[in-house]
Amino acid sequence: MLDELKQAVCQANLDLVSHGLVILTWGNVSGLSEDRELMAIKPSGVAYPQLRPEHIVIVSIATGEVVEGDLKPSSDTPTHRLLYQSFAGIGGITHTHSVNATSWAQARRAIPCFGTTHADHFYGELPVTRPLTQQEIEEAYEVNTGHVIVETFAQLDPSAVPGVLVANHAPFSWGKDAAKSVENAVAIEAVAEMAWKTLAINPNAPAVDQFLLDKHYFRKHGAGAYYGQSGDDH
Amino acid sequence: MLDELKQAVCQANLDLVSHGLVILTWGNVSGLSEDRELMAIKPSGVAYPQLRPEHIVIVSIATGEVVEGDLKPSSDTPTHRLLYQSFAGIGGITHTHSVNATSWAQARRAIPCFGTTHADHFYGELPVTRPLTQQEIEEAYEVNTGHVIVETFAQLDPSAVPGVLVANHAPFSWGKDAAKSVENAVAIEAVAEMAWKTLAINPNAPAVDQFLLDKHYFRKHGAGAYYGQSGDDH
Amino acid sequence: MLDELKQAVCQANLDLVSHGLVILTWGNVSGLSEDRELMAIKPSGVAYPQLRPEHIVIVSIATGEVVEGDLKPSSDTPTHRLLYQSFAGIGGITHTHSVNATSWAQARRAIPCFGTTHADHFYGELPVTRPLTQQEIEEAYEVNTGHVIVETFAQLDPSAVPGVLVANHAPFSWGKDAAKSVENAVAIEAVAEMAWKTLAINPNAPAVDQFLLDKHYFRKHGAGAYYGQSGDDH
Amino acid sequence: MLDELKQAVCQANLDLVSHGLVILTWGNVSGLSEDRELMAIKPSGVAYPQLRPEHIVIVSIATGEVVEGDLKPSSDTPTHRLLYQSFAGIGGITHTHSVNATSWAQARRAIPCFGTTHADHFYGELPVTRPLTQQEIEEAYEVNTGHVIVETFAQLDPSAVPGVLVANHAPFSWGKDAAKSVENAVAIEAVAEMAWKTLAINPNAPAVDQFLLDKHYFRKHGAGAYYGQSGDDH
Repeated sequence: MLDELKQAVCQANLDLVSHGLVILTWGNVSGLSEDRELMAIKPSGVAYPQLRPEHIVIVSIATGEVVEGDLKPSSDTPTHRLLYQSFAGIGGITHTHSVNATSWAQARRAIPCFGTTHADHFYGELPVTRPLTQQEIEEAYEVNTGHVIVETFAQLDPSAVPGVLVANHAPFSWGKDAAKSVENAVAIEAVAEMAWKTLAINPNAPAVDQFLLDKHYFRKHGAGAYYGQSGDDH
Repeated sequence: MLDELKQAVCQANLDLVSHGLVILTWGNVSGLSEDRELMAIKPSGVAYPQLRPEHIVIVSIATGEVVEGDLKPSSDTPTHRLLYQSFAGIGGITHTHSVNATSWAQARRAIPCFGTTHADHFYGELPVTRPLTQQEIEEAYEVNTGHVIVETFAQLDPSAVPGVLVANHAPFSWGKDAAKSVENAVAIEAVAEMAWKTLAINPNAPAVDQFLLDKHYFRKHGAGAYYGQSGDDH
Repeated sequence: MLDELKQAVCQANLDLVSHGLVILTWGNVSGLSEDRELMAIKPSGVAYPQLRPEHIVIVSIATGEVVEGDLKPSSDTPTHRLLYQSFAGIGGITHTHSVNATSWAQARRAIPCFGTTHADHFYGELPVTRPLTQQEIEEAYEVNTGHVIVETFAQLDPSAVPGVLVANHAPFSWGKDAAKSVENAVAIEAVAEMAWKTLAINPNAPAVDQFLLDKHYFRKHGAGAYYGQSGDDH
Repeated sequence: MLDELKQAVCQANLDLVSHGLVILTWGNVSGLSEDRELMAIKPSGVAYPQLRPEHIVIVSIATGEVVEGDLKPSSDTPTHRLLYQSFAGIGGITHTHSVNATSWAQARRAIPCFGTTHADHFYGELPVTRPLTQQEIEEAYEVNTGHVIVETFAQLDPSAVPGVLVANHAPFSWGKDAAKSVENAVAIEAVAEMAWKTLAINPNAPAVDQFLLDKHYFRKHGAGAYYGQSGDDH
């Protein structure tokens, strides 16, 4: 079972490269075991061309300790772990510094839902967290990055909006497994690029109407979905 | 005959990838049979790397029903079907979410004809539809997407302007066959990128003079065409 | 001799593709024979992946007639021919619709010399022609495109500024041979992209000082050149 | 020993190409020998596809003279040499004309630290030099380019900010060896692209808080580093 998970997480990390979402080693994907007790995550600072399944590190969700693997896990591991603990039903998390999404995070702006590309994946604007305080950064930076994400979703459903921009940092996304979290990272980067170009063309571009958002989102998600071969594409 | 059509439509879908026009599964191409009774279209939500001719779905133009193929056709099938019913002479349709064209669609702006790249392919500005109403979206979203495109061409010749931006959605293009509709999708994305950059450089850039538009368009299209090896490149 | 020229011109056309300067069939390169009596040019509307040396068309500079080759030459052939007749010493010409340079042409703006990348290749701003008149377009469009380029260089040395933007159209570049004209097309696209980004970052960015322009240009060109292995890199 | 250095410097130059940082021959990487007496540098104007370790030129740091190699060293050799003489501890230097970083250099603007991507590599804004004077350019252009960089770091630690923009020219970066200087060139291009897009999205975007800069920089650098497998990633 863990071998399959490590294989899937390794492949998901490599898919970041083929989708053009990572530069150097800036990015990581993790996946959760079926019993939700273990996460598999990329090792810290390892170059993608050398990444193989045996490098993937297994970390306990309960304790945060490495239970399998010779390498140190990603420095963002505490953020991943807190999100698995807080968001029921997610099974994979992706973090990148993809250029356009990171630019929105640096601008401290949520990405408005300007069209169906966005509505197909995110049910409403893609939110941005507040900046962390000095105390939060100095005391426990990575786990507090998770806390500020969770705080941002106080009034939001993380399964309907499977991603976020961390202010002055970069995007995180999630999904039912590692591969789906990568797909949502691809979607975030695409809507991020389309959104700033939309505003460059028309600074007064309006967000989509609520009924178009409903139509596109529920065409692909939930009981009434009819996109794809199996209905619910989520 | 249908085998040839499926092969051509499969190749046209794969060409979207090599031209950089699709992300994930966001795009589809269809082609019409010579007797204009059947359309061949990409199945819904199938990943491009796995797409093969036998996956292409055959749909009746008269009834909208699948007449051959094991997979569900693209969720945009009713839009394609209505365009084939409404625009005489077109034999292929392409829909993408290519980044720059989608940004114009999200900005709800027609793309002005700023130069000969545009004039070579589109005889005048590339129009944008009005947004669909709540009723149109809730009652029959995909076929009404077709209707709003047809409405936009009430005063336009779809063979002279072989493409459109659907407001808050993305571009559709068409041509005499599937391959030609892909070529027009490539042209839309190129002129979309050039047009916003033109405005970034000179916010007051004028559209081309009518006589330059006439020259370039008719150099490639119609009885007096002299571009390419066979004259009419359309 | 003509076989070598056709081979070189074919390769130069294919290099446009590897440098990312062409979309579909929008571009062409020609080269002049050593006796300056014949030009070799890409055939009209042929797809790049299929292009082979035997497709290259040989045209007489004196008469404009095809003297060798089964295909029609590029529709831009009269423009190339006039430039060979007018600009002594050039032996190759490239025409593309590369995205950033075309955006400047559509904006009807010369590209200011903002830095050494520009100064290394062009001794001063990259000029833009005036738009052609209705009469010029209707009577002899392609040859008049050449005339308006020549008019733009009335006070400029085409060997010191080996390229131009044709208003509402796209760039042309030239050099001692086909390969060098492609290199200048690459340089035009690069400085075009850098220039609009420079203005996006600082709308008041000044052009370089004359003494920096002199230094960089003459470091690579002319009797005092010391860049590259042979001194004069022109 | 010199063979290893030439191999490493050749590879670092080729890595510029795979990272998309060079166009034509516009860029060069050098590396210093362990005894800091010799530098290995790319030859001037040689095309990257042909570059092999035996083309790399060895230059004396003390005299500036070529001590090994048949080709002329890069015309930027005096700049590299002065930086090795002035910045203790650096062992590799990269110079590119990468598009986004060059645009900031042409705009004569330092790149603000807008996020953690920047803070991970550069401890504060990426500075821009003053323009060189006419006398500096005419008397000894390349070595004075080095002097103006050193002047810019009068109050800055070059190991904490391993790069600079030369006004109206382009970026230089450095590191403990040639490979690390290339990595910093990649980082400069990425933060340059993110920074102008950040400002396009929010013209009032603030630089990061000092405590976030401290956290991210010292997470990867110095005695308390915990990113990567070995702690200090510098």
